[in-house]
Amino acid sequence: MKTFVDCIPCFMNQALRTGRLVGLEESRIMDLLAEFGGMIRHIPMEDPPPRTAVTVYSLINRYVGQEDPFSMLKDQSTRQALGMYEELSRQIRESTDPLGQALKIAVAGNVIDFGISSTYDLQAELAGLLTKPFGIWHEDRFRSALKQADNVLYLGDNTGETVFDRLLIEILGKPVTYAVRGGPIINDVTMRDAMAAGLDRVCNLVSSGCRAPGILLDQCSAEFRRLFHSAPLIISKGQGNLEALLGVNAPVFFLLKAKCDVVARHLGVALGDLLLLDSGTIQH
Amino acid sequence: MKTFVDCIPCFMNQALRTGRLVGLEESRIMDLLAEFGGMIRHIPMEDPPPRTAVTVYSLINRYVGQEDPFSMLKDQSTRQALGMYEELSRQIRESTDPLGQALKIAVAGNVIDFGISSTYDLQAELAGLLTKPFGIWHEDRFRSALKQADNVLYLGDNTGETVFDRLLIEILGKPVTYAVRGGPIINDVTMRDAMAAGLDRVCNLVSSGCRAPGILLDQCSAEFRRLFHSAPLIISKGQGNLEALLGVNAPVFFLLKAKCDVVARHLGVALGDLLLLDSGTIQH
Repeated sequence: MKTFVDCIPCFMNQALRTGRLVGLEESRIMDLLAEFGGMIRHIPMEDPPPRTAVTVYSLINRYVGQEDPFSMLKDQSTRQALGMYEELSRQIRESTDPLGQALKIAVAGNVIDFGISSTYDLQAELAGLLTKPFGIWHEDRFRSALKQADNVLYLGDNTGETVFDRLLIEILGKPVTYAVRGGPIINDVTMRDAMAAGLDRVCNLVSSGCRAPGILLDQCSAEFRRLFHSAPLIISKGQGNLEALLGVNAPVFFLLKAKCDVVARHLGVALGDLLLLDSGTIQH
Repeated sequence: MKTFVDCIPCFMNQALRTGRLVGLEESRIMDLLAEFGGMIRHIPMEDPPPRTAVTVYSLINRYVGQEDPFSMLKDQSTRQALGMYEELSRQIRESTDPLGQALKIAVAGNVIDFGISSTYDLQAELAGLLTKPFGIWHEDRFRSALKQADNVLYLGDNTGETVFDRLLIEILGKPVTYAVRGGPIINDVTMRDAMAAGLDRVCNLVSSGCRAPGILLDQCSAEFRRLFHSAPLIISKGQGNLEALLGVNAPVFFLLKAKCDVVARHLGVALGDLLLLDSGTIQH
C-alpha cells in the first residue's frame, strides 16, 4: 500500500507523542516537528507507510537520544498481558470453539491500549470487544487453509499483543515460526519482547531482519524471505504488516483492527472493524 | 494563549481537510503539506493560535485558489440551523427558565457538526447535548453581570451557530452588538453570514476588522477596540476567541466547548466540556 497524504499529519502526531512520552522539552519537540516538516517533500509517496516510518523514527530517535524509547512501555504491556494469560487460556480451553475464540482474542490484542489501563480495565475492554460485531471474518477459509498447512508463519506486530498471539499459537495445533522485527521501532515486538511474552516456549522465533514496523520483503534477510516464500500459511498481525504486504502473492491471512481511515477506505471496511482477511480475496 | 506544539499537527490536519473539502488533487495537497512543513520553524510560538491560523489559511487558500472555500458549507449550515429556529424558539419561550435554556442552546450551537447531518439528526444531537452534564458553568455570575449591563457585546464564532446565538440574543433583553470577522476564514461568521442568519433583525452588526479566527485586538479596527474596551459585558463564543482573549482585562464570559486537549489542559477542564466561564475567575 502506498503512502497517502493523510499519513503525513499522522507521522507528525507520532513524533509529537513520542517526544512527550520520553519527556522531551517542548522547544525540542518543536525543532523535531520543524525538521520533519522540512522532510515532507522528500517522502516517496509510492512507498508503503512502514518504509517511511523507518526514516521518521530515525529522526525521532535522534532527538529523543534513545535507540528504543518505547522499551519501558513495551515491558509494562507484556507484564499486563501476562497477567491476563491464565484466565484467557482457561476461557479458550473451556470454549465450545477454542480456535474461533483464540482468533477473536488474538485480534482483540491488536486493539487493546496497554500501558494506560489496569488489568481489570483491560479485561473489561476485552470482554466488550468480543461481544461487538466484527468486520470481514474469513474464519471458514482460515480453518480450511490451516487444515492443509503443515506449519504456520506468524508475523508479529505490537508488544503486549504478543501474549494474545501466544494463546492463538498454542491452539493452532501446527508448528509455528513467529517473526519479530529486526530492531526496535515504536512498540513493535523484537526478539527480546517475544521472549518476555514466553513465545519461545511455544514456537520458533525468527527475526525478519527488517526494522520497519511492517514486513518489507526487500529489507528482510535472505533467510527470512526463503521462509516467507515457502510458508504454506501466513498469519499477518496488525496494520503495519498489511500495509507492507498488500499485493504480495502469498497465502496470507491478515488479522487486525482497521485503525485508520486510509486503511479502512483502501479495504472497503469501516474504521475500527476487526478483520480476519484472506489476502486471496482482495482485488488489486 | 500561546501556540503549543500540539497545534502544529492540528494545523496540518486542517490544511489536509480543507484541500479535500474543495476537491484539491492529492499531489497538490501533498505540495501544500510540504510547504506548510517548511514554514513550521518560522511559527512564533508566543503568538496565540488564531494569529498563526491567518498565515496557515492564507497558504491554504493560495493552493485552493479561493478566497472563501467554506462558503458553500457555511450557507448550508445556516440553512440547516434556520430550519431548527422556530422549534428552538418555542422551547425557549415555553421553558420555566428561558435565559438558562437559551444559554445552553447557544453553547450547544458551538458543538453541533453542521453540514453532515439532517435537521432530524441535528435535533437529536442537540437534545442529547442538553441532557449531559456541563463543565464550569458560571450562570449566576452571568445573570448578575447581565442585570447590571446596559448593553452587550457578543463575539461571534462559527456560521450556523449564529442562529443559536440569535436565539440567545433575543432573550437577553438588552441591546446587543454582534461582532463578525473582518473577512472569510474557515467557517467563521462574516457580515454576509450573520445577515443570512437574520442577526441584523435582532441586533447591531459590526466587523471586528480582524480576519483571524479569534479576536486579536491589535489587528482589530480602532473603532472595534473602542467598542470592546467600553463594553460593560462581553459574551465571547468559541475556542478561537478564547485563545485570542485569554489574559485580556475585560468583562468577558466565554461560552464554548473545549474542543482540543491544549485548551482543556490550559483551563483545567475535561476535553469536550461545555463552558460558561467568567474570565474574572481565571488565574493567569
